[in-house]
Amino acid sequence: MNPGDLSYIIDTLFLLFAMTLIIFMVPGFAMLEAGIVRTKNVSAVLTVNTMIYAVASMVFLLIGYQLAFGTWENDSVSKWAAFLFQMAFVGKTVNIMSGGVSERTRVIPLMIFTVAMAAVIYPLVVNWTWGANMLSGTFLDISSMHDLAGSTVIHSTGAWALFAAILVIGPRKGRYVDGKVRVIPASNIPLVTLGALVLWIGWFGFNGGSVGSIASKENADTVALTIMNTNTAGLAGAIIAAIIVYIQYKKFDITMILNGALGGLVAITAGADLFDIYTPILIGAIGGALVVFAVPLFDKFKIDDPVGALSVHLVNGIWGTIAVGIFAEGVSLGDQLKGVLVVAVFAFVVSYVTIYAINKVFEFRASDEEQMEGIDISECGIESYPEFKRAF
Amino acid sequence: MNPGDLSYIIDTLFLLFAMTLIIFMVPGFAMLEAGIVRTKNVSAVLTVNTMIYAVASMVFLLIGYQLAFGTWENDSVSKWAAFLFQMAFVGKTVNIMSGGVSERTRVIPLMIFTVAMAAVIYPLVVNWTWGANMLSGTFLDISSMHDLAGSTVIHSTGAWALFAAILVIGPRKGRYVDGKVRVIPASNIPLVTLGALVLWIGWFGFNGGSVGSIASKENADTVALTIMNTNTAGLAGAIIAAIIVYIQYKKFDITMILNGALGGLVAITAGADLFDIYTPILIGAIGGALVVFAVPLFDKFKIDDPVGALSVHLVNGIWGTIAVGIFAEGVSLGDQLKGVLVVAVFAFVVSYVTIYAINKVFEFRASDEEQMEGIDISECGIESYPEFKRAF
Amino acid sequence: MNPGDLSYIIDTLFLLFAMTLIIFMVPGFAMLEAGIVRTKNVSAVLTVNTMIYAVASMVFLLIGYQLAFGTWENDSVSKWAAFLFQMAFVGKTVNIMSGGVSERTRVIPLMIFTVAMAAVIYPLVVNWTWGANMLSGTFLDISSMHDLAGSTVIHSTGAWALFAAILVIGPRKGRYVDGKVRVIPASNIPLVTLGALVLWIGWFGFNGGSVGSIASKENADTVALTIMNTNTAGLAGAIIAAIIVYIQYKKFDITMILNGALGGLVAITAGADLFDIYTPILIGAIGGALVVFAVPLFDKFKIDDPVGALSVHLVNGIWGTIAVGIFAEGVSLGDQLKGVLVVAVFAFVVSYVTIYAINKVFEFRASDEEQMEGIDISECGIESYPEFKRAF
Repeated sequence: MNPGDLSYIIDTLFLLFAMTLIIFMVPGFAMLEAGIVRTKNVSAVLTVNTMIYAVASMVFLLIGYQLAFGTWENDSVSKWAAFLFQMAFVGKTVNIMSGGVSERTRVIPLMIFTVAMAAVIYPLVVNWTWGANMLSGTFLDISSMHDLAGSTVIHSTGAWALFAAILVIGPRKGRYVDGKVRVIPASNIPLVTLGALVLWIGWFGFNGGSVGSIASKENADTVALTIMNTNTAGLAGAIIAAIIVYIQYKKFDITMILNGALGGLVAITAGADLFDIYTPILIGAIGGALVVFAVPLFDKFKIDDPVGALSVHLVNGIWGTIAVGIFAEGVSLGDQLKGVLVVAVFAFVVSYVTIYAINKVFEFRASDEEQMEGIDISECGIESYPEFKRAF
Repeated sequence: MNPGDLSYIIDTLFLLFAMTLIIFMVPGFAMLEAGIVRTKNVSAVLTVNTMIYAVASMVFLLIGYQLAFGTWENDSVSKWAAFLFQMAFVGKTVNIMSGGVSERTRVIPLMIFTVAMAAVIYPLVVNWTWGANMLSGTFLDISSMHDLAGSTVIHSTGAWALFAAILVIGPRKGRYVDGKVRVIPASNIPLVTLGALVLWIGWFGFNGGSVGSIASKENADTVALTIMNTNTAGLAGAIIAAIIVYIQYKKFDITMILNGALGGLVAITAGADLFDIYTPILIGAIGGALVVFAVPLFDKFKIDDPVGALSVHLVNGIWGTIAVGIFAEGVSLGDQLKGVLVVAVFAFVVSYVTIYAINKVFEFRASDEEQMEGIDISECGIESYPEFKRAF
Repeated sequence: MNPGDLSYIIDTLFLLFAMTLIIFMVPGFAMLEAGIVRTKNVSAVLTVNTMIYAVASMVFLLIGYQLAFGTWENDSVSKWAAFLFQMAFVGKTVNIMSGGVSERTRVIPLMIFTVAMAAVIYPLVVNWTWGANMLSGTFLDISSMHDLAGSTVIHSTGAWALFAAILVIGPRKGRYVDGKVRVIPASNIPLVTLGALVLWIGWFGFNGGSVGSIASKENADTVALTIMNTNTAGLAGAIIAAIIVYIQYKKFDITMILNGALGGLVAITAGADLFDIYTPILIGAIGGALVVFAVPLFDKFKIDDPVGALSVHLVNGIWGTIAVGIFAEGVSLGDQLKGVLVVAVFAFVVSYVTIYAINKVFEFRASDEEQMEGIDISECGIESYPEFKRAF
């Protein structure tokens, strides 16, 4: 076996392993969201999560991948494995968006947006950063931003789309009444926990696999370091969130602790390959703290985000990308900021226009009556827990 | 390290990875079925799923593996890994069968059938197709059928056993009343979704691992292509099922969408290694459509199959095997049809006789009273959700 | 690529794969325990499981790993992967302990004990057995005990801590009334099953990864054999537990069957690398039987352990370690017994003193009123299933 073949084989196996972990994030997201929303909207959330994976992946196969990378060819690893690894990312951008507008959206407009995201919006962002780079040579070139696995490319892109969607669609019926925020508790805490912990594990594939190769001693070290740092930031995010919520309320709110962990994980996603073992503690802890403080802040502005996706993915997508510029040697803070900004403007504006247009034709928002009765009935025609008596 | 040792090591790691993904299908099947059946039958379904894995794997270790392959020896990969990979498949055949007769069966007769399936029925089918081939040289030789990971060998075998079981055991009490089909809704949609998505991921190990080796450039490409095609067929099955149910009912029934995905996955299982990137879309889409149309058809004939296993595994096991003959170059449609037919006759007849005999001695079917009260009480002595008040 | 680099790369990938499977045990334990406890204590259990992973792993990163191994350096595999693999184990010791005292403990004292366990208690046990061995040359040297993946090092250590905790904290309010044991049924059987089956799969990484290397033909065989034997013992444990409970009660109690499987898995953990294919059947079957008989026995002595952790982890941790001395060639039964004893005395005494001290300052036990209302409210401020009406 010649050395080129050998690294080709090992890296193909490595990417298939990483890809599999990322696909576990599909049930991860689905369970997290199914646990957070009210029982009357659970089937809708599960339908949307399943269909996003199906539609986004299919569209990326047919259109988006070409747009992002310009070619299917690949020398260092099986081109099919390279595709699968990239494909595993796509749906995540829409998952982030759909989660934040859950309990009030219809399926069909969401699917149309999924097509737009997977065919054009996300592939263009990838093109400029990890891909063929059609902006090369222009003043908009952001390819020198260091974003290992997508604090900006994935998390911010999805979260800017979510922000646009919230502006167009508005809050859930009954969320803000007489200037007050009505607390809507998660309906199934085991599902929330299961989903968040599976996402955490999926992140090992997300960030570790983004190193791209394990087939040299240096790369093996970088992959392992990346996964360790990823995990460390999640640990720190969970711990700091637990401490803050305990100080605030004298209670350990598990949903906030899990969101703190996810915040830390998003924050480390841009630079997990660059740090020693201690910096991720700081980055993750700040990430976890940002989540705890951002969640009520968004509510103050009546930005209704049932799963806290803006706090987790937008705030920490930005923080994580900037943190690389602050803490990593040889990375320009300016380049990081420019990347954050260019993607922000593009993702927000294009998503806003797209969602606005879809909304005009198809009505993105379920009616107040449909929301009262539950999206499960209006969109799916089934109940999620038909044999369980409701407490109210 | 000499090249032979190297491929031995890499393929052992590869098969252990693939095997692990397949074992995830044990909780996958368990959650899917626990979510579909009524709450009064959930513990029974979970018991059966756990015990099938335990009994089928143990029997295959002690008897079945030898019968299928004639030897434990193996040159190209650790013989223990080779065994584990094959063992991971066995229980699936009985899972398919037990799911379709759930809510009305006793545990002990099912365990006796599990022994028969894992000791003799499934090993013989494997012997003729992937194994030692004792039919070699006879007119029944079906070893030229191309069935990568078991559209026929596993899915059809299990589903023919199910068909036999349904004929012997009959429908659930109260399912067909006055010539009408009583709709029995799934009790826990998150579990259904979790189970189906985990099965989907398990399929990457199922089909990818069935290539048998990743330790050459060509094999690495074939493994990655196989996993990509597997996934693509699942995507297509989900999408087409969603479109059809929406056209029919203006609702997105998530259970049907997930069954559509599973139908696509079963259909691609025979030939995922042979196709380019577009053919799996067609095969999977037809697979998904077949599920949607087959489910009410079986009910028309009062063939009561709570989880839709015949539609997913039998119809698509057949379709997938034939599809290889239609779409793959160098595969004879005649050989495919012959394989389908020989396995059908053998699996159905032997299963029927076995189940008929077991039923005479042990009574396969729970009594009407036991079904009314729930199999959880009669077979397991526990309730699944004792603290949750029932809605009816 | 030189051979040293090659084995470094392959083993790094192997350990990352094994580590990932072990981390799946975090949601595994969380779901198992969330399903067993009453609905009023589910969020507390999930909080504790998540926080144990976060705190134990962080403390092990900062302190414990150094104490156990004396160095971060590593020649044969990426030092970061080596750390991650070891880190994945730590939280398990506290999971075992926290599960057995669930439904009556406060979060903060448990977190303080987690720090003690991950910083000092567990690292010292590892130091003496798998690590730097500061007892080398003393009469307490137990490094010749063969304990592949921790029947004693992990399971007994955690379970002795649990035993100490039960003595200090006492049984749940209302568990033993008028000299009778009040049966408290598991609240969510699908979660119990999901958790146990995911733990089972995690064990493949636990035991298989503990071989330490897959990068030679011999090692590849040993890893695969270890995983096969691990699985076999789980199968045997489940089957024997099913048979015994059926003989006793004419019912198949799925919680006992799953605990039987876990008992078999704990028992095989010490010597899965040493046996042929049949011995694990015996070891696992005895392990499963021990669980079934130990559970009511502990209750007889009013040792209240809601999840059966002492029966699974203590009884079988001891049994599994001794079994190596009985069945494996070249292993001294005396060395095994000495290891069991030294760890027992150390883990029990130090844990008892630590928990006693923590209890004096922070009160480990939730008050009777808090237990009546549920720990979810008092510790987490949220309900686990707020929309589901309680049956009582």
